[in-house]
Amino acid sequence: MKLKLTIEYDGSSFSGWQWQEGLKTVQEELERSFNVLINSEARKKEIELDFSAKFSTSGRTDAGVHARGQVVSLTVPDNLELDPYRIKGAINGICDSAINIINVETVADNFDARFSPHVKQYSYYVLLRHGNLALYQNKAWRVADRLNVKAMVEAARKFVGQYDFTSFAAGDCESKTKVRTIYLSELSRLNDTSLVYTVQGPGFLKQMVRIMVGTLVEVGKGKFSPDDIPKIIAAKERRLAGETAPAQGLYMDWVRYLNRAEQF
Amino acid sequence: MKLKLTIEYDGSSFSGWQWQEGLKTVQEELERSFNVLINSEARKKEIELDFSAKFSTSGRTDAGVHARGQVVSLTVPDNLELDPYRIKGAINGICDSAINIINVETVADNFDARFSPHVKQYSYYVLLRHGNLALYQNKAWRVADRLNVKAMVEAARKFVGQYDFTSFAAGDCESKTKVRTIYLSELSRLNDTSLVYTVQGPGFLKQMVRIMVGTLVEVGKGKFSPDDIPKIIAAKERRLAGETAPAQGLYMDWVRYLNRAEQF
Repeated sequence: MKLKLTIEYDGSSFSGWQWQEGLKTVQEELERSFNVLINSEARKKEIELDFSAKFSTSGRTDAGVHARGQVVSLTVPDNLELDPYRIKGAINGICDSAINIINVETVADNFDARFSPHVKQYSYYVLLRHGNLALYQNKAWRVADRLNVKAMVEAARKFVGQYDFTSFAAGDCESKTKVRTIYLSELSRLNDTSLVYTVQGPGFLKQMVRIMVGTLVEVGKGKFSPDDIPKIIAAKERRLAGETAPAQGLYMDWVRYLNRAEQF
Repeated sequence: MKLKLTIEYDGSSFSGWQWQEGLKTVQEELERSFNVLINSEARKKEIELDFSAKFSTSGRTDAGVHARGQVVSLTVPDNLELDPYRIKGAINGICDSAINIINVETVADNFDARFSPHVKQYSYYVLLRHGNLALYQNKAWRVADRLNVKAMVEAARKFVGQYDFTSFAAGDCESKTKVRTIYLSELSRLNDTSLVYTVQGPGFLKQMVRIMVGTLVEVGKGKFSPDDIPKIIAAKERRLAGETAPAQGLYMDWVRYLNRAEQF
């Protein structure tokens, strides 16, 4: 049986999504929780099995990045006849309280959170203040400089389209092609002291959103103009874009999987 | 020179506002920071003084309660000729990053954050979910029960007015009179999965807002009807009201000091 989970987590409690020897990661915590649950159910039902949970994810978030609606999938043994609603409650009870399972549903066996076609949205929060993050510790990027927000709004829109985003990929990004498509890229004022950047697309390169945000903040500081964005993209050189914004301001908002008609 | 500070803090980092032997409190952290700054300034200017910061506050928040705009005041030596803007930067640099000094201004010597007439607002956040708090750990109260929000909205309004709020004061509340005036008391849906309760008034009893919220949630569960609120108030018995809601959902939003004309 294939399960699709929608999850929220506080990234400051984890060393990112992906399993890493000796570190606390979201993947490890979810796999551990499913192993506990599935093996306990098997013993209860006196079914012999050798289960080890293996998740696929819509996005391998970096250490410190948060999720409001990340989608992950895994296969569980059919013969246990598990109820998705009870799985949700059980896993929330077993796993670290920095993770919340929002939803569990059964899906077709060929569904895969990573490889099934989808569109996803990330948001990035910038707090405009001189002082400490206080209530927003680990939850936003503090920028003390005066920013030209109008220029940032204009620059953000320049990312929309299909381009080779080599300039906006981490140096160690292993994706074969660096061509990606951005459907929506908007920066807006949330209130007097905060900005939110929202971006949507079917896929992103390693640290791509964080480098885009770092570059937009440098537009705000006057180091780049909005018209420099297409030039930086065209150059395909990482060193020409801005700094990588810190992970703690980034949120994976949602993932929408396309139905068959939409895939044409 | 009298200073008025507006501060934000994450209450989960502190054992409340008030100084307590051996515990980390907001008052202790601010007093420590001012002692460092004032004594360093005195040495720099070769002025001998024996300074020890002593704060007055608009509200002594409990352990775990947050502040978005609490107001506190203290007297600093006149002969140091301190610049309020530089004080703000220096204190933010010295104190724990769970506290943010939003504003520092000089005020009349007779100003006192606690005793000068004022109106203040608290908010309380309830998250309606079965799972874990995840991104909202230490920041809201999780309620898994199905709630009748319409009844809660109606009940919340019944608190408006001047009453003896003995039923809504902690058992160890030391206030001589338990009569308090509520100007505004509104419960509203923030979105599908969260409620916010907002209350305004010139003063509150110990744990008063948390007991009001605990009672409203019991209205939501059907234990009380909105019409029970005036009866619970009239009875002047703490045991008749609901449980005390947890501290972590409570935020001190702002304090507005009245000018002379408003005090008539």
